[in-house]
Amino acid sequence: MKIPVGILGATGSVGQQFIHLLRDHPFFEITALAASERSAGKSYREAVTWFLSTPMPDFVETMTVQTCEPNLPCRIVFSGLDASVAGPIETAFAREGYTVISNARNHRFDEDVPLVIPEVNSNHLALIKHQPYGKGCIITNPNCSTIGLTLAIKPLLDTFGVEALHVVTFQALSGAGYPGVSSLDILDNVIPFISGEEDKMRREPLKILGTLNENRIIPADIKISAQCNRVPVIDGHLECVSVKLKKSTSEDEIIRVWESFRSEAQEKDLPMAPLQPIHYFHESAYPQPKLHRHLDKGMAVSIGRLQTCPVLDYSFTLLSHNTIRGAAGTAILIGEMMVEE
Amino acid sequence: MKIPVGILGATGSVGQQFIHLLRDHPFFEITALAASERSAGKSYREAVTWFLSTPMPDFVETMTVQTCEPNLPCRIVFSGLDASVAGPIETAFAREGYTVISNARNHRFDEDVPLVIPEVNSNHLALIKHQPYGKGCIITNPNCSTIGLTLAIKPLLDTFGVEALHVVTFQALSGAGYPGVSSLDILDNVIPFISGEEDKMRREPLKILGTLNENRIIPADIKISAQCNRVPVIDGHLECVSVKLKKSTSEDEIIRVWESFRSEAQEKDLPMAPLQPIHYFHESAYPQPKLHRHLDKGMAVSIGRLQTCPVLDYSFTLLSHNTIRGAAGTAILIGEMMVEE
Amino acid sequence: MKIPVGILGATGSVGQQFIHLLRDHPFFEITALAASERSAGKSYREAVTWFLSTPMPDFVETMTVQTCEPNLPCRIVFSGLDASVAGPIETAFAREGYTVISNARNHRFDEDVPLVIPEVNSNHLALIKHQPYGKGCIITNPNCSTIGLTLAIKPLLDTFGVEALHVVTFQALSGAGYPGVSSLDILDNVIPFISGEEDKMRREPLKILGTLNENRIIPADIKISAQCNRVPVIDGHLECVSVKLKKSTSEDEIIRVWESFRSEAQEKDLPMAPLQPIHYFHESAYPQPKLHRHLDKGMAVSIGRLQTCPVLDYSFTLLSHNTIRGAAGTAILIGEMMVEE
Amino acid sequence: MKIPVGILGATGSVGQQFIHLLRDHPFFEITALAASERSAGKSYREAVTWFLSTPMPDFVETMTVQTCEPNLPCRIVFSGLDASVAGPIETAFAREGYTVISNARNHRFDEDVPLVIPEVNSNHLALIKHQPYGKGCIITNPNCSTIGLTLAIKPLLDTFGVEALHVVTFQALSGAGYPGVSSLDILDNVIPFISGEEDKMRREPLKILGTLNENRIIPADIKISAQCNRVPVIDGHLECVSVKLKKSTSEDEIIRVWESFRSEAQEKDLPMAPLQPIHYFHESAYPQPKLHRHLDKGMAVSIGRLQTCPVLDYSFTLLSHNTIRGAAGTAILIGEMMVEE
Repeated sequence: MKIPVGILGATGSVGQQFIHLLRDHPFFEITALAASERSAGKSYREAVTWFLSTPMPDFVETMTVQTCEPNLPCRIVFSGLDASVAGPIETAFAREGYTVISNARNHRFDEDVPLVIPEVNSNHLALIKHQPYGKGCIITNPNCSTIGLTLAIKPLLDTFGVEALHVVTFQALSGAGYPGVSSLDILDNVIPFISGEEDKMRREPLKILGTLNENRIIPADIKISAQCNRVPVIDGHLECVSVKLKKSTSEDEIIRVWESFRSEAQEKDLPMAPLQPIHYFHESAYPQPKLHRHLDKGMAVSIGRLQTCPVLDYSFTLLSHNTIRGAAGTAILIGEMMVEE
Repeated sequence: MKIPVGILGATGSVGQQFIHLLRDHPFFEITALAASERSAGKSYREAVTWFLSTPMPDFVETMTVQTCEPNLPCRIVFSGLDASVAGPIETAFAREGYTVISNARNHRFDEDVPLVIPEVNSNHLALIKHQPYGKGCIITNPNCSTIGLTLAIKPLLDTFGVEALHVVTFQALSGAGYPGVSSLDILDNVIPFISGEEDKMRREPLKILGTLNENRIIPADIKISAQCNRVPVIDGHLECVSVKLKKSTSEDEIIRVWESFRSEAQEKDLPMAPLQPIHYFHESAYPQPKLHRHLDKGMAVSIGRLQTCPVLDYSFTLLSHNTIRGAAGTAILIGEMMVEE
Repeated sequence: MKIPVGILGATGSVGQQFIHLLRDHPFFEITALAASERSAGKSYREAVTWFLSTPMPDFVETMTVQTCEPNLPCRIVFSGLDASVAGPIETAFAREGYTVISNARNHRFDEDVPLVIPEVNSNHLALIKHQPYGKGCIITNPNCSTIGLTLAIKPLLDTFGVEALHVVTFQALSGAGYPGVSSLDILDNVIPFISGEEDKMRREPLKILGTLNENRIIPADIKISAQCNRVPVIDGHLECVSVKLKKSTSEDEIIRVWESFRSEAQEKDLPMAPLQPIHYFHESAYPQPKLHRHLDKGMAVSIGRLQTCPVLDYSFTLLSHNTIRGAAGTAILIGEMMVEE
Repeated sequence: MKIPVGILGATGSVGQQFIHLLRDHPFFEITALAASERSAGKSYREAVTWFLSTPMPDFVETMTVQTCEPNLPCRIVFSGLDASVAGPIETAFAREGYTVISNARNHRFDEDVPLVIPEVNSNHLALIKHQPYGKGCIITNPNCSTIGLTLAIKPLLDTFGVEALHVVTFQALSGAGYPGVSSLDILDNVIPFISGEEDKMRREPLKILGTLNENRIIPADIKISAQCNRVPVIDGHLECVSVKLKKSTSEDEIIRVWESFRSEAQEKDLPMAPLQPIHYFHESAYPQPKLHRHLDKGMAVSIGRLQTCPVLDYSFTLLSHNTIRGAAGTAILIGEMMVEE
């Protein structure tokens, strides 16, 4: 018997990815699709502008889209809602006893809401017992550009300590949702700004990498500089990172630490968990969005170009799939981890 | 009477830009086009795959391409030769009394060869009197990604002092020459590596910003970290820069210093000189390659997004046209400056 | 003394092109910019998302955008309004005595409204004396994809007669306005459909190429098949055309007829008129949007690849700039022709 | 026991696709990779610039690339060789007893060589008994742009008769091989010419759709016009087709004929055969390369936009994956069909 799940914001960019990733899931079965008033009442096929390059699964085509009210026939809802509406809707679902796993930013910094990457801080899930929702609860996953970065930093923090991070991003178009970025703005161009993104990258890793102390998180103490840019790539955020460590080490040691990094999600062999969370490429021009975004079901972080940095200690380049690893896939992995427990 | 000039590597990417920029030049007249054996003897029209988006000037269509031997009917040669052949050819021209102004990297670090950005270090041109070529000489312009960066740093160095620079580039396709980057490698992709580029960005600014001491340059003392990336943009290198200054200052003061920066090239109103070398944009998503690469004849550096950097002191984003400001335009401006003196 | 003109829909894609093309016009001076309620009252700089790759002219930056009511300080209005609102607004301006030259489709098939390409059917302008607006009038220019095609066909029709046309288009993104096509829909893709476009291409040439008979146009008798597609190109519509002629001829003769085609607009040397309306390229891979869209101020039609067609008589490929030749430039040329008379 | 197969031209664009499609094949096992002298002796990983967006299969990474001499340890060779060298190499393999299934054009019009699309003319395979190679033989698959077109036409020919075809193509970059088209030539552009392509599209369908008469093929009698264009799309050729039929019919009937089209390849359920060779889409803007190229393992032809054509009878738009359906996939399906018999 699979667990019935609903998708809030089912017609959007992250919503489509939820549907794609859950189409044959061993734990979950999609029993409800919900979206805005404009879509409600239509078949999913009519309501959506499907733009993934894999076809829409047959079973959702004829499902009727519902409004985002907390009377959906399911126990867990995955939320891909836009931040302009997500906050109160997610609260309403939690109050009615639903487990809400959200990709929206609205509740990420609520004191009692965990901000989780399963391989990094699944222990933060304990926060939910301090939420005021009874059986219901809200868990959030981080911003798409934060997840890849934080996964790459976690083993460095544990092994060497991290004082400072400097990151410059090359972010894909699907991160802006649909219709998102106009083609006239981005073809033959780079846009050196994404609203709110740099702030998220400076704050979110500190909560995720922070320490759970009773009913609150004590944030990690790392200086983070972030410059965020949009590039004409469909999927896959690439990030140029420089890092200042607390202990001295070597490139070989860093690579070893990345490649051997595993977590409970891997040990339990959860369906959405990558076999190996971090892959290091020795080829000089890797990783690349087009070549590596789908690695390990789109859930791996690909790293390459590790070198000493004359200003901080080391520089490297990382890549992760922004709507799988960076959104829907991580949310589903959170769901899997909660089911296992 | 205009000064007759020749172009070495006339069919290449930088060669085409030389032709485009010199088509109605008040000082110079193109009297010779030279390229490889394969092109020699053909009309320019036959020999070239023209790919600038402005049409080929009429007067070059029927000019016969010559080999790169030092018997061309001109006094100055602008070299857009590939580094695989440029070294000895340029030396041969200098020996025969030609003034060689080169965009190739081969002679950039010769002790007696100035590496010049006219607005930054035209005083380094004095080095040529130590060259062994009699009437002839070699002057080089820096790498495309170095020029924009060094122009932006020069006024900061003069006013505040600079301890460290951290730069991540988003480089355009025309920087790789023609045919250069395969469309299969770059459409829907970013390539996080450009051979030799990071090394150039770490070394060249130190020579350019160095001090002329008799017959040699004492390099500047700045730590530079560079990560270079290719993006699907036709023209215009964008760079995310962070900088550590020696004196504390404010964003307003930095902007004021940039906007008021002028040099002899501006005072003499040289034809290729931008009216204002550095433009600061207050719009949150500027500068952008598509919108600003042609600013001030393609010779301006556009800057935006200045903000405090939690790791160094300040971050900003700059843009410059890689084949105009970053190559042919700067070489021509060097020529103009030498003619004026 | 220049003639004061206003621009309706000044913030849109065609509106921006009007501003760009009129910035130093010898006949006209922009004295009014009008747009939707949302923009009215703001400075143009605040109201617009400028996306042309040439910078916004200084003089419009601080002009205040007005609403589209017929009390603007000018005599002629160029309309780049969206078809959803253009109809009644344009009528209101004509009623108040303005000369309205419109790029919108709304009035194109009104019996008393001329649909004009100046080089093809400027005699149709005589229709306006049958309009009920007193001093005011409405003239329309055709759809962007129609203009290039009809210009290429006009000399063939006059010389050989034309029975049938078959056209397949490769249309640029700027034709869809701003924000227009989502980058997620078109990067690495072709969209084989543009709403309403095929119908326009089948009908409009018949009116333009028709015969003025007193107060009406008798449409030309040509069978037209059109398939319209969107491609990831910023500017410049390319069209693959096959044509069935009434008289037999040769490729050389067709090229001669195209290259020698001139009209009153050329004879009067109007500012916006191309020197030569049709250019034929003998190179095997020409014309191309990136290389030829700006030919002759963006007002020329570039043709190449003429060959016999085993199904109809001849095939060829044409290119024209969709927002200059195909919209604002043709509208301005209509204005110039009216001023001359 | 699987049949050992080799791949000629293993490092090229079609060679990579052969490797990808054969990685877990139920009939075939790759036992030899051969390429040019330049690659021979290297491991496949060293020799290749892998550019498919799916990772290189592990088992080929360490295989040693061999030269293209007929002493490979296999019985069947799939050839993705470049036409500049394919002819004599393929003949040499056939002489030594290998079954050669080639994607190269060299032998396609040899009188005794079948040009095969398994769903269309598998009966032509009988020609090989007239070849002079003893146990060896050569079979060819058609050009990438021909295969989709001919599959779409076959059921129309059988049911209604076809007098004339008019096709305009939008061809993907992978069709040009690697490095193929320079990014500077195609970003923000369309190239209205592909060398030799139009001739192939006019001739190949006539042989494929022709009648086997003893030891030769009598070509079909259909007039074909073709205009071939390169667009900035990675994979998937889109074609706008108009057709003149011999019998009158209706759009519904045509769609019915397409959707019900099946062949022996489907009946035998061959591994590479699409379940349904032709899919018709009723959505107004379908098919699209990005959305439909992978349909049915990349082996389906997607069609949409069927409408009456005012010049011929009907127009429609088709799409097929150029390196799967249009090359390697069809070659493998030929191999499967031969194994079954």
